[in-house]
Amino acid sequence: MTTVFCIGIAVQDHIYRIERLPLGAGKSRASDFAVVGGGLAANAAVAIARLGAQVLFATRLGDDQIGTSILDELISEGLDVTPSVRIKGKRSPISAVLIDETGERGLVNFADRDLPDCLEALPVSLPANVDAVLGDSRWPEGSIRMLGAARAAGKPAILDVDRAEGPLDRLVAASTHTAYAAKAAREHAGTQDLAEAILILQRRFSDTRILATDGADGSYFVEAGRVHHQPALAVDVVDTNGAGDVWHGAFALRLAENAPLIDAIRFATVAAALKCTRFGGRRGTPARADVEARLKDWT
Amino acid sequence: MTTVFCIGIAVQDHIYRIERLPLGAGKSRASDFAVVGGGLAANAAVAIARLGAQVLFATRLGDDQIGTSILDELISEGLDVTPSVRIKGKRSPISAVLIDETGERGLVNFADRDLPDCLEALPVSLPANVDAVLGDSRWPEGSIRMLGAARAAGKPAILDVDRAEGPLDRLVAASTHTAYAAKAAREHAGTQDLAEAILILQRRFSDTRILATDGADGSYFVEAGRVHHQPALAVDVVDTNGAGDVWHGAFALRLAENAPLIDAIRFATVAAALKCTRFGGRRGTPARADVEARLKDWT
Repeated sequence: MTTVFCIGIAVQDHIYRIERLPLGAGKSRASDFAVVGGGLAANAAVAIARLGAQVLFATRLGDDQIGTSILDELISEGLDVTPSVRIKGKRSPISAVLIDETGERGLVNFADRDLPDCLEALPVSLPANVDAVLGDSRWPEGSIRMLGAARAAGKPAILDVDRAEGPLDRLVAASTHTAYAAKAAREHAGTQDLAEAILILQRRFSDTRILATDGADGSYFVEAGRVHHQPALAVDVVDTNGAGDVWHGAFALRLAENAPLIDAIRFATVAAALKCTRFGGRRGTPARADVEARLKDWT
Repeated sequence: MTTVFCIGIAVQDHIYRIERLPLGAGKSRASDFAVVGGGLAANAAVAIARLGAQVLFATRLGDDQIGTSILDELISEGLDVTPSVRIKGKRSPISAVLIDETGERGLVNFADRDLPDCLEALPVSLPANVDAVLGDSRWPEGSIRMLGAARAAGKPAILDVDRAEGPLDRLVAASTHTAYAAKAAREHAGTQDLAEAILILQRRFSDTRILATDGADGSYFVEAGRVHHQPALAVDVVDTNGAGDVWHGAFALRLAENAPLIDAIRFATVAAALKCTRFGGRRGTPARADVEARLKDWT
């Protein structure tokens, strides 16, 4: 069975459905509310599990009640959280997520700063049964360790960059594939033109495949020196929260299965779109059969 | 010892300190985070307890973990929550509160709709030891019952109106004093001019003393047919969340102690201002000695 090692942040999302963003001063009422686990790596890991693979999941949490809830939920999704660590005296990450009636999302995250690197919790080389690694930039030294271990073993090492932060050059260089959120690609490349940004980054990191996801505008990647565009799948959008993370999880899974790049991108595009059709963040993550069925109909 | 019966909403506030409101689409980071009880009646009740009186507190909560946390915190503040009820299958109220660097507050609340009236949980007449009742509009039939019981017993019956909602005419008529948030006074009177709104409401409810609080602009009330203005106390504002509720609690307490109206207003004004000088919602509620000391210096 395909196995993916995921490393990075896990959060508790408190999702409020409101009429309209932005939220200014004053009081608003939410018409719906849900507490759901979130976070880039955790959402991607849950997507991989739902899409039919085994997941080893590594994250750093505080030793608080929120951290326990986060892990319990991940375990209930079938993840093996053995490589995750709890840090004494630290608070686990939590987000308020506001979803408006157009499916637009505003998010405020609190995460304790200055967490220790906790590298002793991680294997020094890639476990034999692992087919790919997916990491984010929220546990930078951990991701660098595990992405590098996958690269060294000749396996796909996928980095999710949603923010130009931390030791980003080292992170990208450790990966075989880096998929940026559009804004992060622009910031890392230092240009507002997304296609230009991708070309700049692809030249800078010639040993890593550079991609960028841009929500409803689909995704971009470089093939034979030119930027290609994969349009998104049009759906009735209810909740975009976590859609990018599901994209990364689905993409990593198909690479772990040795699928060609374009197949992995199309599979990820459909999985992310289907997620957006339901309220409740990653609760909306589709099952494999739903993605395959939609992929068949999609030309 | 003075005893105040408080009835209305209790909430769990998740408070995020952010750089700037409004919050639009995208991700923001919070520099601080706190979980603190909130809600109009509950904040007022905690203020009354900290300011030195006994409090009987009645609220309707779900039978969930959040409801248990809310009650445990109120008990730890010294409140007697005997008249509060837990409703099977309902969810307890929760808010995301965003405080920006200017102390401005944006709040999103989720509360389960269609709660039963639960009047069987409340006494049919005012308990002999109760010196005043404070109610809000979030448990309308409960507040009407208890405010009416106080009025019938010749005791102060203070209503906090932050929103023109529900059976508002019956609520105001049941009270001896109604203190509106400025926006709610404008809505209930049907005019944008706050002074005019207060006069309209005072004529409409001739048997109830009408007041309005307007944040940093202080408060307004009618005396001998004319609108009087009480300026706020100038402080370095860190967090305005719950300031209006502290105002209502402090005001009700001084009326319960038979203080003259203007003394109650000035006391409430100082208590609310001091609350704003600390982060963490009602955690910043001052002790009585602090309010008295600041009152002495304030001319």
